[in-house]
Amino acid sequence: MAVRLKDIARDLGVSVVTVSKVLRGNADIGEETRKRVLKRMKELNYQPNMMARGLASGRTFTVGLIVPDLVHPFFAEFAKSLGGVLRTRQNALLLASSEEDPEVELQEIRTLLSRGVDVLIIASCQANLRNFYELGDKRTPYLLFDRNFPHLAAHFVGSDDVQVGEIATQHLIDLGRKRIAHIGGKGTSPAFDRLRGYRNALHANNLPSPTNYAVAYEKTEESGDTIGFQAMQQLLRLSPPPDAVFCYNDLTAIGAIDATLQAGLRVPEDIAFIGCGNLRYANYLRVPLSSVDHNTTELGRLAGEFALELSTDPEQSPRSILTPSHVVARASSIGTTPEKPTR
Amino acid sequence: MAVRLKDIARDLGVSVVTVSKVLRGNADIGEETRKRVLKRMKELNYQPNMMARGLASGRTFTVGLIVPDLVHPFFAEFAKSLGGVLRTRQNALLLASSEEDPEVELQEIRTLLSRGVDVLIIASCQANLRNFYELGDKRTPYLLFDRNFPHLAAHFVGSDDVQVGEIATQHLIDLGRKRIAHIGGKGTSPAFDRLRGYRNALHANNLPSPTNYAVAYEKTEESGDTIGFQAMQQLLRLSPPPDAVFCYNDLTAIGAIDATLQAGLRVPEDIAFIGCGNLRYANYLRVPLSSVDHNTTELGRLAGEFALELSTDPEQSPRSILTPSHVVARASSIGTTPEKPTR
Repeated sequence: MAVRLKDIARDLGVSVVTVSKVLRGNADIGEETRKRVLKRMKELNYQPNMMARGLASGRTFTVGLIVPDLVHPFFAEFAKSLGGVLRTRQNALLLASSEEDPEVELQEIRTLLSRGVDVLIIASCQANLRNFYELGDKRTPYLLFDRNFPHLAAHFVGSDDVQVGEIATQHLIDLGRKRIAHIGGKGTSPAFDRLRGYRNALHANNLPSPTNYAVAYEKTEESGDTIGFQAMQQLLRLSPPPDAVFCYNDLTAIGAIDATLQAGLRVPEDIAFIGCGNLRYANYLRVPLSSVDHNTTELGRLAGEFALELSTDPEQSPRSILTPSHVVARASSIGTTPEKPTR
Repeated sequence: MAVRLKDIARDLGVSVVTVSKVLRGNADIGEETRKRVLKRMKELNYQPNMMARGLASGRTFTVGLIVPDLVHPFFAEFAKSLGGVLRTRQNALLLASSEEDPEVELQEIRTLLSRGVDVLIIASCQANLRNFYELGDKRTPYLLFDRNFPHLAAHFVGSDDVQVGEIATQHLIDLGRKRIAHIGGKGTSPAFDRLRGYRNALHANNLPSPTNYAVAYEKTEESGDTIGFQAMQQLLRLSPPPDAVFCYNDLTAIGAIDATLQAGLRVPEDIAFIGCGNLRYANYLRVPLSSVDHNTTELGRLAGEFALELSTDPEQSPRSILTPSHVVARASSIGTTPEKPTR
């Protein structure tokens, strides 16, 4: 049976209003009464109804997170790290998924805001993010992550995706590759920035960047393997075909490598590959996959610290935190690695 | 600027109480007034404060889900499917993770209950689940999934894990294997039931089940590859070693196969493997992995239907829904598959 404010009031011979005021930290209750109430709450292991408390204080000690895809390991690992940071400071994480559907995203934003989260963190799938104030909540601060909207003056935490494109492409250049293609994403800031980084690296090394070497697709998150397979079939028909490919993410790279092997070509001898995300299984794949690692755990930690700051001090000027990434080289680009003397 | 009840009341020349009663569906408001209020709410795109509405009606149209690990694809896929079903019926999903820590799980239960979810769905990591009523919430119905607690009379949705163990082991027996080992989990009902299914199948086929052929480990979810690697090294030291292994999950199987290849043995010629979960990447692994598929999407759908039923009719006798699984055979057990003519 749940302990109610009424029970505490009856036990101490005070009114329910008095007990409620103590719970809300109201100043017009005498120190002695306050102590008696808090002592009795502790004795009875009273669990305050956070919903009622949220209405009274305006704080819920809860951070809301909306991701576009729960199954994508990047978002899951980010959420795990973020939740860990919040927990150490007695804050809870409530998570929702938009399934890459802008309409669903608006619903989920409303759900979380109406639950009274203190801060909302979101990797938005809107093509053009409107100001969140239009959603009818002026007070809840929000923090964009992974996907930025340059026209919106908002807080942001994410990878430096221009750098991601640069280091991935430079890795292939350093291996002596000359005809480097890119299988990219579409309609998000990481897709745009990685493409820009790819072009920067080619330009800095005086390498050609024929436009048909850079292809862009939607749905690279949900069905990247199928998309990578199709995109690679398209690139293999070019003359000459590329001798290296920087793929938008690991799943795209997996599909592209599959298409290359099925065409009777060798990886990396004929075509080298690098993906993005450094998937948990990258090392166990048919061809262990080189990848750009986003330091997702660090990203989650930074987002958690930022969110906690915003929950106590919401009126800050928009600030961006960009984390650096690094290349993890495996067989798909550098050939058989010494770490895996198998078969 | 958010639209408030006060604004609607002022515009129509009625009291805030009247507007609030309309919002809550209170019957003592005349039909004409009701229509005027609803019309004005629509015009102003009024977003009801669900927190306040939840306090008034006792319903929040929200289902809470607690999983032990967000990064594990099984839980992510389950959440995705569940969320889809809830959404079609205008219910939201709020997700939290216990990180396989019983203390964190208790905190997350409190967080979700205090947000006023209508139903709580949980894959609990408690060794012995106590009655949820002890947590101070007598009214919120809950639904266990994945992990059952036989001593607790509770609603349950999950795989039939005895059947999982039986069909996985039978698959290896059907391939002519005689010395079948099991790398299992520890302390959860799926771990216990899969072991039971493994023993059932061996017994039904008059095959020996030496006790040192069945090993059990904790943390098979978070670091299954490392655990599978170590467990397999242990099994390889036996004389004779097994000629087939049924692994608790795919990650464990990946690690076990790695240990086998590093020992200079062939998969499946020397030792055949089957995992569990049918991971998204199973087909792209160094040795494409045979696995038991849990029909996770169907499991999420059934849990969603069950939860919606409980939200409108909480007082039901405990009921269990078990879904059947099936084997997906790939190279790790049956050798080179005709579907993949690579290299």
